[in-house]
Amino acid sequence: MDQNLNGWFTERSPMWPGQAFSLKVEKILHEKQSKFQHIQLFESANFGKVMVLDGAIQFTERDECSYQEMITFLALNSHPSPKKVLIVGGGDGGVAREVAKHPAVEKVVQCEIDSEVIEACKTYVPSLGCGFSNPKLTLYTGDGAEFLEKTDEKFDVIITDASDPVVADDDQGDKTKDGPAASLFKEDYYAKMKDKLADGGILSCQCESMWLHIKLITSLVKTSRAIYPVVEYAYTCTPSYPSGQIGFLLCSKNENTNFREPVTVWDLEAAEKLNLKYYNSDIHRAAFAMPSFMRRELDNIK
Amino acid sequence: MDQNLNGWFTERSPMWPGQAFSLKVEKILHEKQSKFQHIQLFESANFGKVMVLDGAIQFTERDECSYQEMITFLALNSHPSPKKVLIVGGGDGGVAREVAKHPAVEKVVQCEIDSEVIEACKTYVPSLGCGFSNPKLTLYTGDGAEFLEKTDEKFDVIITDASDPVVADDDQGDKTKDGPAASLFKEDYYAKMKDKLADGGILSCQCESMWLHIKLITSLVKTSRAIYPVVEYAYTCTPSYPSGQIGFLLCSKNENTNFREPVTVWDLEAAEKLNLKYYNSDIHRAAFAMPSFMRRELDNIK
Repeated sequence: MDQNLNGWFTERSPMWPGQAFSLKVEKILHEKQSKFQHIQLFESANFGKVMVLDGAIQFTERDECSYQEMITFLALNSHPSPKKVLIVGGGDGGVAREVAKHPAVEKVVQCEIDSEVIEACKTYVPSLGCGFSNPKLTLYTGDGAEFLEKTDEKFDVIITDASDPVVADDDQGDKTKDGPAASLFKEDYYAKMKDKLADGGILSCQCESMWLHIKLITSLVKTSRAIYPVVEYAYTCTPSYPSGQIGFLLCSKNENTNFREPVTVWDLEAAEKLNLKYYNSDIHRAAFAMPSFMRRELDNIK
Repeated sequence: MDQNLNGWFTERSPMWPGQAFSLKVEKILHEKQSKFQHIQLFESANFGKVMVLDGAIQFTERDECSYQEMITFLALNSHPSPKKVLIVGGGDGGVAREVAKHPAVEKVVQCEIDSEVIEACKTYVPSLGCGFSNPKLTLYTGDGAEFLEKTDEKFDVIITDASDPVVADDDQGDKTKDGPAASLFKEDYYAKMKDKLADGGILSCQCESMWLHIKLITSLVKTSRAIYPVVEYAYTCTPSYPSGQIGFLLCSKNENTNFREPVTVWDLEAAEKLNLKYYNSDIHRAAFAMPSFMRRELDNIK
């Protein structure tokens, strides 16, 4: 493990210059260069199992609940009847695990580019890899943008659980290259998704941190506003992601969608029944409350 | 600078075992062992000026707005007329800077234990040290808990801007000792504050991260509930704090206080007039929305 110094893994990237997050490593579980990326899995001292792709932390068992539950239920609970769900990416299985919990969901289709990620998580991280054993799930491997072009199905909700568009190209995190998810941050991807959404369909896409990537976020919001009548940005707190926060771009084909007020309301009791550690309707509503600096950026997009 | 490895400062502590946050250092501005703690100030590559006390980051210019504005206005905007404000701690000047912005405030008293911190911030970090030039401010140096016993004044709001109760005692962050703020996390301090609050008075106290310190938080909530009729926990996102998040304990002597709905509402326009980067009434309300795991902890306190 290249970035493992004295038993610590350190995450550096030009995507977040001048800052680094480190986790103490107990045991390396798996390390492999796949066709698409460098895959690392380790048991950490205090964050459970951790997956790293091209040097960037993808999840830790300690805080993945925040990301997986929010990217899933911000969308599903904003749709009155989310029967058919497409997951693009999500190779760790966490989003599939969460989607399966929603009582309205009848069919789940997933397209992940890297089968090696799926296999690694099924083998070493059953707490997430369990998502792939859902009988409602049909799993494909391949490029998500290409899959969207080919499929003739339509979906009520599409969740894009992508890694960063740009990844580090060396151990020190000074150089970058396009990552396998680069195509999922492009304008034509957002147009393609609209074609495959059923009437009233909704998107939820990983959309980076407001503390680091305002230009990328505002550019994607602008792109989406030209395609969808309703576009919102929301965020959640995930300590092991850069700056401790990650955002979501939510779009709807239905002009009456109000993402800020969930149509399916889950209080603490409902959350407990579904084994939700993070999500509830209060935190759903709060996810759209922006700090002033970010609200101004979003309001000033022309 | 002991923890400066190849131009990076790394923050490790037994308060957050197995994780570390690092910042790239451009230039060391100041380093001194005061009577109370080890003080470090540096210019970082991407976070502006940074202050470190006993190895723990206290602020970075890039994200201090989140902490200073939220600890201040969650309290001040929950009080119908916050004329007299006491700040305990807050040696960097950031809270004094924010309190002075509130149009209702007539008098500010501050008691910081370490005059060396005040002098360092006045000299090297004018963006925070400017808080001390407020003509409404009377500044004392000394222990905050002792000050509360001696003063015969009463305050509408008391803000406790404390560092952590326990600090690292070595460079590797393996050993701990009580820090200069230890007395500000004890039960009798919360009782003393009540004596010095005017009728309807309100507290806002730094209260750590739900991802790291649930036992400390729930213990302080339990303590406070025995003393005050209204007690709430809230939080904000501050990337340079451990786990990217920090919380506040809010208490009121007035049983009718509803912290979740500010009595003074500041929209984006009002926030802009007061030069607020982070706070607005939307984010005020959202600060009280807890993830399910934390809501359960708070609801289960007996």
